[in-house]
Formats: sequence, C-alpha cells, structure tokens
Amino acid sequence: MAELSVDPYVDLYARRTSGMSASEVRALFSVAARPDVVSFAGGMPYVQALPTDHLQEVAAAVLRERADVALQYGGGQGPRTLRERLVMLMAEEGTPADPEDVVVTTGAQQALDLLGKVLIDPGDEVVVEAPAYVGALSAFSAYEPRFVQVELDDRGMIVEQLEEALLRGARPKFVYTVPNFHNPAGVTMSRERREQLVALCREARIPIVEDNPYGLLRFEGEREPTLRSLDPENVVYLGTVSKVFAPGVRVGWAVAEPGLLQRLILAKEAGDLCGSNLTMLITERYLQGERWRRSLEDLVAAYRRRRDAMIAALERHFPPDATWTRPAGGFYVWATVPSYVDTQALLAAAIERRVAYVPGTAFYPDGRGRDRMRLAFCYPTEDRTLEGIRRLGELLADEEELFRSMSR
Amino acid sequence: MAELSVDPYVDLYARRTSGMSASEVRALFSVAARPDVVSFAGGMPYVQALPTDHLQEVAAAVLRERADVALQYGGGQGPRTLRERLVMLMAEEGTPADPEDVVVTTGAQQALDLLGKVLIDPGDEVVVEAPAYVGALSAFSAYEPRFVQVELDDRGMIVEQLEEALLRGARPKFVYTVPNFHNPAGVTMSRERREQLVALCREARIPIVEDNPYGLLRFEGEREPTLRSLDPENVVYLGTVSKVFAPGVRVGWAVAEPGLLQRLILAKEAGDLCGSNLTMLITERYLQGERWRRSLEDLVAAYRRRRDAMIAALERHFPPDATWTRPAGGFYVWATVPSYVDTQALLAAAIERRVAYVPGTAFYPDGRGRDRMRLAFCYPTEDRTLEGIRRLGELLADEEELFRSMSR
Repeated sequence: MAELSVDPYVDLYARRTSGMSASEVRALFSVAARPDVVSFAGGMPYVQALPTDHLQEVAAAVLRERADVALQYGGGQGPRTLRERLVMLMAEEGTPADPEDVVVTTGAQQALDLLGKVLIDPGDEVVVEAPAYVGALSAFSAYEPRFVQVELDDRGMIVEQLEEALLRGARPKFVYTVPNFHNPAGVTMSRERREQLVALCREARIPIVEDNPYGLLRFEGEREPTLRSLDPENVVYLGTVSKVFAPGVRVGWAVAEPGLLQRLILAKEAGDLCGSNLTMLITERYLQGERWRRSLEDLVAAYRRRRDAMIAALERHFPPDATWTRPAGGFYVWATVPSYVDTQALLAAAIERRVAYVPGTAFYPDGRGRDRMRLAFCYPTEDRTLEGIRRLGELLADEEELFRSMSR
Repeated sequence: MAELSVDPYVDLYARRTSGMSASEVRALFSVAARPDVVSFAGGMPYVQALPTDHLQEVAAAVLRERADVALQYGGGQGPRTLRERLVMLMAEEGTPADPEDVVVTTGAQQALDLLGKVLIDPGDEVVVEAPAYVGALSAFSAYEPRFVQVELDDRGMIVEQLEEALLRGARPKFVYTVPNFHNPAGVTMSRERREQLVALCREARIPIVEDNPYGLLRFEGEREPTLRSLDPENVVYLGTVSKVFAPGVRVGWAVAEPGLLQRLILAKEAGDLCGSNLTMLITERYLQGERWRRSLEDLVAAYRRRRDAMIAALERHFPPDATWTRPAGGFYVWATVPSYVDTQALLAAAIERRVAYVPGTAFYPDGRGRDRMRLAFCYPTEDRTLEGIRRLGELLADEEELFRSMSR
C-alpha cells in the first residue's frame, strides 16, 4: 500500500518500461549547465558560432513569405523542398539519394525510434558496436531486442566478429553503425572494413543502418565513402542538421527503400503527425545559398582547435598508462584509464572537482566499460578544456596513489 | 522472388506494422491541397488569421536574445518557462496544474504515442469512444492493444456502457476521451457524465486520459469542468497549442503524476531526445502578454461563423433523413446519412465533384461507421462551405435516386 500511494500506476506500466531508466548522460545535463563545471559530458554543438543575425532574417522571411505553410500541419514525410536540400547535403559526402526516398524526422534520434518500431519484435537480435551510441541503445531498447555486440578498433567495427556471430547463428534484424568519427569511440571505419561490411550484409541479407551525424565535420585526411554510396539498396542512411546547423531545429532524416520508407512515414504520422513546418522551412532556407558553408567551416575549425587542445592536455595531464583515441573529426575522444579506476564510481568525485564526462558503461548494454570515459571536446573552449583535463588528471593521480597505498 | 525484389525487407517487419496502413485521413491530405476541392477532410486550423507581423518579431526576438538556448539541445521535459505558460493556458479553463508535472511533447499526438509506449503491452485493453479520434487509434495501435469501445450520445461518452464493460470483466489500462467538442463527433460531455466517469474510474483504479485540444474554442454556452480539475490524481491531461496558436510549432503537452511523468520523459528522450527549443521559446513568447488572446478571439469568431454556415447549408442541402451534431465549439460536425449510403465507397465520387470529407469508418477500429462522415468546418470560408455542402447534398440526392431505382 505504501508503494501504491507513491505511484498509483505501478501495476500498469508496459513491460518495455523496465528497460527505461534515467541515463547517465541525462543526469549530467543539469550538472553540465553549472558554469563552474567544465563539461566533457554532453555532445552539445558550438551554436554560439552560428550567424544569429542571418538566422533572424531567415526566420522572418519564412514567416513573411510562407506563413500559411510554416504555421500549418504538413505531411509525415516532410516538405519536398527541404528533402531536396538534405539530399544536397548528402551529395557533399558523395552519397547520391532521391528526395522521394527521404523522410524528415525529429533529429536522427526519431529515425532510430521509428526503425526500432518498424523492425524490432521483442527478442529480435540487433547488431550494435561495442561501444555504441547511447541514444541508439535507448531508442531500440523500447522495442525489447537482444543486442549482439561487435567490437571496434582504430579502423572501426571489426567485421570479422560480425561474421563469426552470423556463423554461430545470429539472425539480426539489422546492423547499426556510426562509421565516421564514432560516438563515443571517435574512430572512423576504414575503406576496407566498409567494403567488407557491405558485402557481408548484402550476402546475408541483413540491412545496415548507417548513422552519419558527423561526416561533414572532418578535420584532416581523406573522406571515406558512405556505406549507402557503396550499397544503396541495403543501407538505410540517417542524417541530421544538428551538427552542421543546429540541434534546436530538430531536423534529421532517414533514406530508405520504398517499402521500408512507407512504414517509417506511417510510424512517424502515428507518433507525432508531422514535424514542425516552421523549423523545417527555416532549415531549408538556411541551407540555400552559401552562408551555411562559411559557418560550417568556422565550426570545423573551432572543433579542430578544441580537439587539439584536448589531445595536448591529455598528453600532459593523464597518467602514462591511460590511452585515448585521436579522432580525425566529430565530437569525441574515448579514453581508457587504468583498470583500478571505475569511471562510473568516480563521476561524483569528478563533479566535485568541477569536471564532467560520461562513464563508459553508458555505451554498452552489458555493463562493460568501467575503465572507459567519453570526453566530448565540442563545447568547452580550449582554455576550459586544458583546465578540465588538468582537474581530471589530478583526480586520476589521486586515484593511483590511493590504489598503490591500498596495494602495499 | 518477385515480391522480394519489390521489398527486400518484407520478412523483417515487426508484427506491430501489420496494423499500420495509410489512413483515409492521410490519403486525403493531398486531395485537400487541390484548390478546386472544398475540403471538409483535414482538421486544419485557420492559420491565416494569425498575426504574422507580430510572429516575425517574436521569432527575431527569440533568436536575438536567446539563440544559445533556442538553437541548442534541451532536456526531455521542455523549458520550465514554457511549462509555466502552458499551465496558465490550463488555468483559462479552470484547471490547476504544476509546471513540474508537465512534459512538453511534439503536439498532443506525441503524448498519445508516449502513453501507448509506457502503458500498453500487446493484448492489453484500452477504452476508447465510438467513434474515436483517428490519431489516437493509430498511436495506440502501434502497441497492439485490444480496443474496448464505448458509445457516445449528445452528452458525450455513455458512462453506463463503460460500467457494464467493467462488470463483464474488462480490465483496461486506461480510458481515453475527448470531452470537449469531440473529434469527430462534435459533442461535449455533460457535467453529470463527467462526474460519473471520474467516480467510476477512481473506484475501479483506471486512469483517464483526457485529450482537450479544443476546450478554448467554445462558441456559446457554459464551460464544463475538465476531468483533470475533478480528479487531478487519476486524470492524465493532454493539451496542445495547435488550435489556440499554430500546429506548425508542434507544441503539445501532458500533465501526469510524478511516476508516470518520469516514464513519459524517459520515453520522450529515447524517442527524439528533446523538442525544438526554437519553436518552444517562440510559443512561450507568443503566449506572453495579451496579443494571443485577441488572435484567439478572432479565431473563435471565425470558427463560429463557419459552423453556422455549415449547419445552415446542411439544413438546406442534405436529405431530410440525414442527421448531424451541432457542436458548441471545436472543428467538427458528425453527420449520419441514410443507411443505403456507404461514405467510404462514395468518397471517390465526392472528390470527383470537388468536395472531400472523412468517412466514418476511420474513427472505429471495427469497421463500423459506413453511414457516417466527419465534416470539418474549421478551414473553408463560409462561401466555400455553402458550395461544398451543396455539392455533397447533390451527390447524396443522386445516391437516393439510384437507390430508389434499384429498389423498384
């Protein structure tokens, strides 16, 4: 009875809610907002670099010229004119696509949810990388899959591990991957691995879901072909304007073959009727002309400097037996600390020292990752990054001392 | 093999997709867009009446003063400052609420989806009205419930029917209702029925989901208390700014007790991370001051005139044995035509005569409603409404003649 008075609906929740819990990333949002904490936790883009004067003009023009559409309901697929701009963004990375094959979603996150809804029955297998984007794990989890994990190395997903899983009898509904500047691992899939993965999945008739939020944020080196460009028929492509423009407009998209696309649109309409015509038309207009390219160049330059600052700070302040990835783009460094450190347990102490990160466990469905942490370099300035990594290095040094004193 | 080449994923879809089909409402969106068709199909608000000059200022001010927030990610619950405005909208109808108990959603439609996700296991019973809002049926259907239907009369849901269903052993997860200016039926639940429903559900410990998109669009008569104001602990309240402001901003909300609220927020974050801070802050700013009240008064006056035009046209042009509801607010008239008419079969002929409606079958999960049609009076001007109902009346007269000639 006591429990019932706390939550009268406790007996009514669907089974799938047992997998829902306040994520570590979420709990950190409030912490990250405190100005004295250097937060490497959230992957928040550097929106301060956006041209707000220009955006005021864009929004006013949309409301002046297209208010009837901008303020009204629309179809579930999103405006054709916006889909044409999104296809042009894909062309920037050499990926051909037809606007008819695109459904606009509330960020790429909603596309992950819709894919789960349309493809996953309880108990179905889904292949994810280990580690994997925490948002994909929570989106898919609502549909009660079993995760088959395939590990990463510096060249991305270890495709041989997937092959072995299939040989052992895994029958996944799809393979989910972030090939470029992986979240959280920071690594990029090599050309050879891409071709291997695409060939294997085509042969096994398993669709690939390619999530590519960071592709246009390359700091150096040569672009790799998207999986979709290697095999358009078997790759569902997910994009977003959150990193090349702004997350606040909530515009992402999926590109899929007609049968799957129709189901995604129907699931989208059942889920929220349609996206915001206002933010979709603002996004469309922003992506016209050339202004957005200059802003993107500014963003990439800023992120490159911030990555450099973080790598330099890690080399200076982290213990010699720690390692980390060196991303050629994107938002994230993935660090491995000595095994006597438990990054989950250490987080409270870190926040006390006014620095935050995401513990590695958030990115594995099986509780692994206690010796890992995701360090997002996208948001803090270089100075703040140096200071934050210094604080974290100090904490790790204290941990080492504690460990040694206990081992004596 | 032929089928596989059409859709290579045909074996991969989740079971829940078997209930997903292109709704009649959806198919009509494209028809409604043709300017020569008088569409009574979509419930599209009269956004042309909104103050677009003022809205340009609102959007510019948000981007000038709060771009850092407007363009960034936010938490899943939505900004506290917006939730305070939404609670004030509820106060306009005498419904007390705490901003802490509110989660902002992508229109009220997403709240329906999240409730389904959090509460419905496959096979669970859910009570809906007959007829019921088609969007609620499709949102819930994705979670594979069994619908228990309770009929409506001119005073809203016939609560005795629900009582009988419970006595026969129904154990629904919740009761879904649109008490004010029902979609599609146009009727409003009486004070007595409201008290009856709230008492019955409290006694049976079944939560009520009260969907109230049209409450502030009253043309005449006295406001009835919301169910939430009669029993805050057992009523989940859904609101939206789509009808008092604009659907294009996609801002709706749910008010729920803390345990359920937390699960809705987690499901929201898994589904799309967060809403658009840009449209949420624009909505917040629009709802400050008094300008929105004047616009709402203009809208209500326009909808009242349009309702009057439709009722007058129906009296003039519909057959004497047809009946219809006389809504005191909202968007919809629900018409019953002679039983020899099949409104679903007749739709193509109606469109040929350049008039559209939604056939009654869309609003029942069991195929009933062939002698009903939903006529939305919100969008066409009075002249267009007169002309559209004239066309529809002519078509019904031709149907009658055909029926009589076949009966001879």
